[in-house]
Amino acid sequence: MSQTPPTVGIVMGSDSDWPFMQDAAEALDEFGVSYEADVVSAHRMPHEMIAYGSQAAERGLKVLIAGAGGAAHLPGMLASVTPLPVIGVPVPLKYLDGLDSLLSIVQMPAGVPVATVAVGAARNAGLLAVRILAAHDEELRAKMAQFQADLKQQAQEKGERLRRKLTEGSSFGFGAR
Amino acid sequence: MSQTPPTVGIVMGSDSDWPFMQDAAEALDEFGVSYEADVVSAHRMPHEMIAYGSQAAERGLKVLIAGAGGAAHLPGMLASVTPLPVIGVPVPLKYLDGLDSLLSIVQMPAGVPVATVAVGAARNAGLLAVRILAAHDEELRAKMAQFQADLKQQAQEKGERLRRKLTEGSSFGFGAR
Amino acid sequence: MSQTPPTVGIVMGSDSDWPFMQDAAEALDEFGVSYEADVVSAHRMPHEMIAYGSQAAERGLKVLIAGAGGAAHLPGMLASVTPLPVIGVPVPLKYLDGLDSLLSIVQMPAGVPVATVAVGAARNAGLLAVRILAAHDEELRAKMAQFQADLKQQAQEKGERLRRKLTEGSSFGFGAR
Amino acid sequence: MSQTPPTVGIVMGSDSDWPFMQDAAEALDEFGVSYEADVVSAHRMPHEMIAYGSQAAERGLKVLIAGAGGAAHLPGMLASVTPLPVIGVPVPLKYLDGLDSLLSIVQMPAGVPVATVAVGAARNAGLLAVRILAAHDEELRAKMAQFQADLKQQAQEKGERLRRKLTEGSSFGFGAR
Amino acid sequence: MSQTPPTVGIVMGSDSDWPFMQDAAEALDEFGVSYEADVVSAHRMPHEMIAYGSQAAERGLKVLIAGAGGAAHLPGMLASVTPLPVIGVPVPLKYLDGLDSLLSIVQMPAGVPVATVAVGAARNAGLLAVRILAAHDEELRAKMAQFQADLKQQAQEKGERLRRKLTEGSSFGFGAR
Amino acid sequence: MSQTPPTVGIVMGSDSDWPFMQDAAEALDEFGVSYEADVVSAHRMPHEMIAYGSQAAERGLKVLIAGAGGAAHLPGMLASVTPLPVIGVPVPLKYLDGLDSLLSIVQMPAGVPVATVAVGAARNAGLLAVRILAAHDEELRAKMAQFQADLKQQAQEKGERLRRKLTEGSSFGFGAR
Amino acid sequence: MSQTPPTVGIVMGSDSDWPFMQDAAEALDEFGVSYEADVVSAHRMPHEMIAYGSQAAERGLKVLIAGAGGAAHLPGMLASVTPLPVIGVPVPLKYLDGLDSLLSIVQMPAGVPVATVAVGAARNAGLLAVRILAAHDEELRAKMAQFQADLKQQAQEKGERLRRKLTEGSSFGFGAR
Amino acid sequence: MSQTPPTVGIVMGSDSDWPFMQDAAEALDEFGVSYEADVVSAHRMPHEMIAYGSQAAERGLKVLIAGAGGAAHLPGMLASVTPLPVIGVPVPLKYLDGLDSLLSIVQMPAGVPVATVAVGAARNAGLLAVRILAAHDEELRAKMAQFQADLKQQAQEKGERLRRKLTEGSSFGFGAR
Repeated sequence: MSQTPPTVGIVMGSDSDWPFMQDAAEALDEFGVSYEADVVSAHRMPHEMIAYGSQAAERGLKVLIAGAGGAAHLPGMLASVTPLPVIGVPVPLKYLDGLDSLLSIVQMPAGVPVATVAVGAARNAGLLAVRILAAHDEELRAKMAQFQADLKQQAQEKGERLRRKLTEGSSFGFGAR
Repeated sequence: MSQTPPTVGIVMGSDSDWPFMQDAAEALDEFGVSYEADVVSAHRMPHEMIAYGSQAAERGLKVLIAGAGGAAHLPGMLASVTPLPVIGVPVPLKYLDGLDSLLSIVQMPAGVPVATVAVGAARNAGLLAVRILAAHDEELRAKMAQFQADLKQQAQEKGERLRRKLTEGSSFGFGAR
Repeated sequence: MSQTPPTVGIVMGSDSDWPFMQDAAEALDEFGVSYEADVVSAHRMPHEMIAYGSQAAERGLKVLIAGAGGAAHLPGMLASVTPLPVIGVPVPLKYLDGLDSLLSIVQMPAGVPVATVAVGAARNAGLLAVRILAAHDEELRAKMAQFQADLKQQAQEKGERLRRKLTEGSSFGFGAR
Repeated sequence: MSQTPPTVGIVMGSDSDWPFMQDAAEALDEFGVSYEADVVSAHRMPHEMIAYGSQAAERGLKVLIAGAGGAAHLPGMLASVTPLPVIGVPVPLKYLDGLDSLLSIVQMPAGVPVATVAVGAARNAGLLAVRILAAHDEELRAKMAQFQADLKQQAQEKGERLRRKLTEGSSFGFGAR
Repeated sequence: MSQTPPTVGIVMGSDSDWPFMQDAAEALDEFGVSYEADVVSAHRMPHEMIAYGSQAAERGLKVLIAGAGGAAHLPGMLASVTPLPVIGVPVPLKYLDGLDSLLSIVQMPAGVPVATVAVGAARNAGLLAVRILAAHDEELRAKMAQFQADLKQQAQEKGERLRRKLTEGSSFGFGAR
Repeated sequence: MSQTPPTVGIVMGSDSDWPFMQDAAEALDEFGVSYEADVVSAHRMPHEMIAYGSQAAERGLKVLIAGAGGAAHLPGMLASVTPLPVIGVPVPLKYLDGLDSLLSIVQMPAGVPVATVAVGAARNAGLLAVRILAAHDEELRAKMAQFQADLKQQAQEKGERLRRKLTEGSSFGFGAR
Repeated sequence: MSQTPPTVGIVMGSDSDWPFMQDAAEALDEFGVSYEADVVSAHRMPHEMIAYGSQAAERGLKVLIAGAGGAAHLPGMLASVTPLPVIGVPVPLKYLDGLDSLLSIVQMPAGVPVATVAVGAARNAGLLAVRILAAHDEELRAKMAQFQADLKQQAQEKGERLRRKLTEGSSFGFGAR
Repeated sequence: MSQTPPTVGIVMGSDSDWPFMQDAAEALDEFGVSYEADVVSAHRMPHEMIAYGSQAAERGLKVLIAGAGGAAHLPGMLASVTPLPVIGVPVPLKYLDGLDSLLSIVQMPAGVPVATVAVGAARNAGLLAVRILAAHDEELRAKMAQFQADLKQQAQEKGERLRRKLTEGSSFGFGAR
């Protein structure tokens, strides 16, 4: 995907998850973090999944991001075969609103943690990967701090926009009192 | 465990689960079904777990029973590497009453089913294994039918006992009317 | 339905469940497993339901698949009158996302197990029936192993497709780094 | 149990449920309503359960009370074979706090209602049976009205007791201001 | 509504609930049971709600049906002021799928039961009212038995239709084996 | 927004919440209570959020209303820096129906309460603010009492409309008996 | 209870709730806020409950605190008959951990809010009442600000204690590195 | 705590959480990772909490671990003021089994991730911090790989122990077949 060797591996059980998981990739792109993305299914290609996780560190990856839904085993299984930090994204399926995905990912036994983010929060998985990488990269940490400053500014601008709208009056009679 | 080669493999993540999972073994014992029991942890010995599942069929096992709790990945991962039927027992942990274990086991994606029993129902896992084996074993099926007849008789005896107790009166004044 | 006598009985509470439950039938079809399908309602035709279950084994069926929703009693009641393995499919209704169906099917008391699959997972019920039959049928087991190999290949092809798409660049700037 | 023919049938899956279900019996005793109690298990004696329900009306019973836990099928199955009103008591099991029992009982499909009371509320099942019988029995209805008046008086006396205690001061300094 | 004095009172918090609650009315219509329907809101007209419940018995009503959603207080409050049986229908609101409505209705304290039916099951509420009235009305009970026989016949016809469709072959190759 | 200094502060994490939160504003408008509305995000502008809460009392605000969804921290954090009463509105997000929002807002530790209203109940947050202000404002309390009387009258009119519709007959045969 | 006329009314369904609800009273005591406490049961003394709520404002009460469990109707019913702010405390019962109580209290319909606090959080109910009263009472607000400052100081002292303990070493070898 | 400047900050709302959170500290100790532990309460010392988070990076900390229960705001608020990775530990409180804590921590909005571990999993939080630090520290990563190898060996020894116990026979008759 990028010419620098990938730092983050983004994996998912099917390419149909890509429209969902690409939020993680976009976040990494925004920070200039290189990554690879692949289909690695715990249930359909278990041996390959184990191999992927086992070789991730020696291949130079620093962080894994794994999205999975339902009885979501991918993040936890990867975490069991790599010493790298693994970020799990609970993908919501048709029923149960991702509660099954969340519990299947976050409730890992002692010894093998998965860094779990919110149901459907692929973008936050990317941002968490950036934070992890930034723990030893001052430049990246400065970018993250700037990103947070930008979030603040955007929020403040929204506030101004809202206050202006209210001052100018609105359909239900603001300012009419 | 038994001198006939084992037909059922009972696996769990730690020997501390044995007091819990031995209910499955006892049920198999009652029906004279041979089995083996072992510690096979999805998260602590993933390669061995994959190997165990991959070789189960050729080793002559017909059914696997796997107990797991929390982000319970053992039953589903075994099912992904064996064509045998895998029975999953959701082990309740300290919090959440086994709801996490249940969802992590039962909500498998299309293609890889796990035959899930109730939270904590190791005995029923054993009985389900017997039913599966009995699908092609008339003698075993007759034993299961007899087992069900025995359950009925016990329930009926309990009914008699209760009716007798009520007829004879009880602390809160039965029969006093 | 098929000219060989049926091996699997697929039952449901109403023919309106057929579009849903036919995923189980399709899976059996793919493996050449004969089956019958019928409407057997625990609550609308209880005597017939009991009769269906009681006669299933002597009629030559080896596995029952029962789909039910809400206070889903069909799988458990069939299991109580047959020594055959019964697979329960929790059908999601309009509210509660099938959580009621799941708990009503899986939480069976000691003595009478139901092999429960995921909410709405009729296809997996069919595949589980195949696994159960395959426990004593090497040819069928080989087919299941092949089926799993095919799943793997499909997943790998999806991975290739995804990697190719990313390499070729995409709307949010892949490869631009 | 009582010499007048029973009006209410109280059934449960095991005599071990009796200490729990006898709250229903006590409530009926308080109102002088005759009843019988028996072990009728949906899963262990399904044919007898169907027979019990089918014959209940002709045997002169007017209301059935059924307690069951987990995948609780007894109340709903009885309701499917009798035109009588069936009251379901969700018995809480070791895990899940009776949520499984509640949903298994209350979520009945259109056509076959079960009158469900709270988790563990055997006493309320008895009182509901009284209300149902009282719908056509003025004397009984007057008793129920009196019972409600008594509840009120007890509550008011508790209020007086509390107010008195607070006025007289208490360990954390009431009245000290 | 009907010229015979009403036997059942159907109440709800708003006339916008009527499209939902009229399923109860239709069920009563099918059995020729007279009823009235009214808007009685626990939270918007509490005094009138209390009055409605307090006078229901002397006005000749035998059963009350109350539909409510969210923090659903109407069924329980009516039950506290009448000795009549009160049937509660948990109305699902925009969020939480009626779980809040169900728990708010069914979890009544000891002394004041509400006969709760499934989330959204207004029709079953009507049928339960019929069963309650039929407890002392042989003709009505015979009608209910007939109704249950009709349900059975419809289910059986659905089964025949399904079996015929499958025999005739279908898009995914039934009968082709 | 209004020329009198604002009494209530309505805050939310983004101006995209405004269509949702303006129900609170409308309720305040109906009672002539002045307010301000602003974007104050706990997670995007934490320092400003702390400042907003810390200065709210001295700026003359009497009540704060904060809407937030998911891991909803805004109401609780504001409550930790102001002695004013803070009303929390759980905003439902795409998944989980606001259960996460509700628990994140209501389950505050001892010492720092948040007055929580129903999932999505921005209007009720406004009405609760009015009640709080009315606790020391007889005129406002009279308005609230009048508002409640109006609610009653509307409900009664709905009842009349429903009764009239039923009397006149309807599509499913009312009055035809 | 106190000689000044009570400002806050603390009510509950039974005096057995007092050990639980007195946390609210203690909080009020700490702030010198006068109160009364009484047993007012929605389900056992509905008329009196309605009367209590209807007269609360004219009797001089400014805030009501109501604790209730299960199908908890007391807070919502009081809110429907008074224009005062009503604080609801979800009392956890034996099953379901207070989730039923919480939903029954917080999910009020539009028009009638209840200020809900955490499950079992009677102390926070008292503190919320103080905040509500303090909205128009500078002295009380200063006390609340001081209370919050005290909370901070206690937390800081706990931090110091913890840091000291860790510096001095502990059973698992702090400082030994 | 240790003489090398701390790399990980472990914070919690009260020193009473220490017995719980020290599992994180022990894990860090095992890997020779320096840390500090402190009481930092989001709700009792919000300004200090914000300051702690804001200064964490410049003070040389690389990872924050925050434990919190109920409406758990500490991890998310820290994450909003630091660019460092923040690990959240959902602390289970008396009710709801930590489900409230879990959702309050994990369901963070886009932009501000928290790396969430299982309910009560303080040890895993420590291990996740090690993995994060090890992403850029080969020696530490080797230690983590060794740790995982040790986990495997322990699990295998448990398996041997279990197999030996079963071979030697046990109270319910192993080997007696």
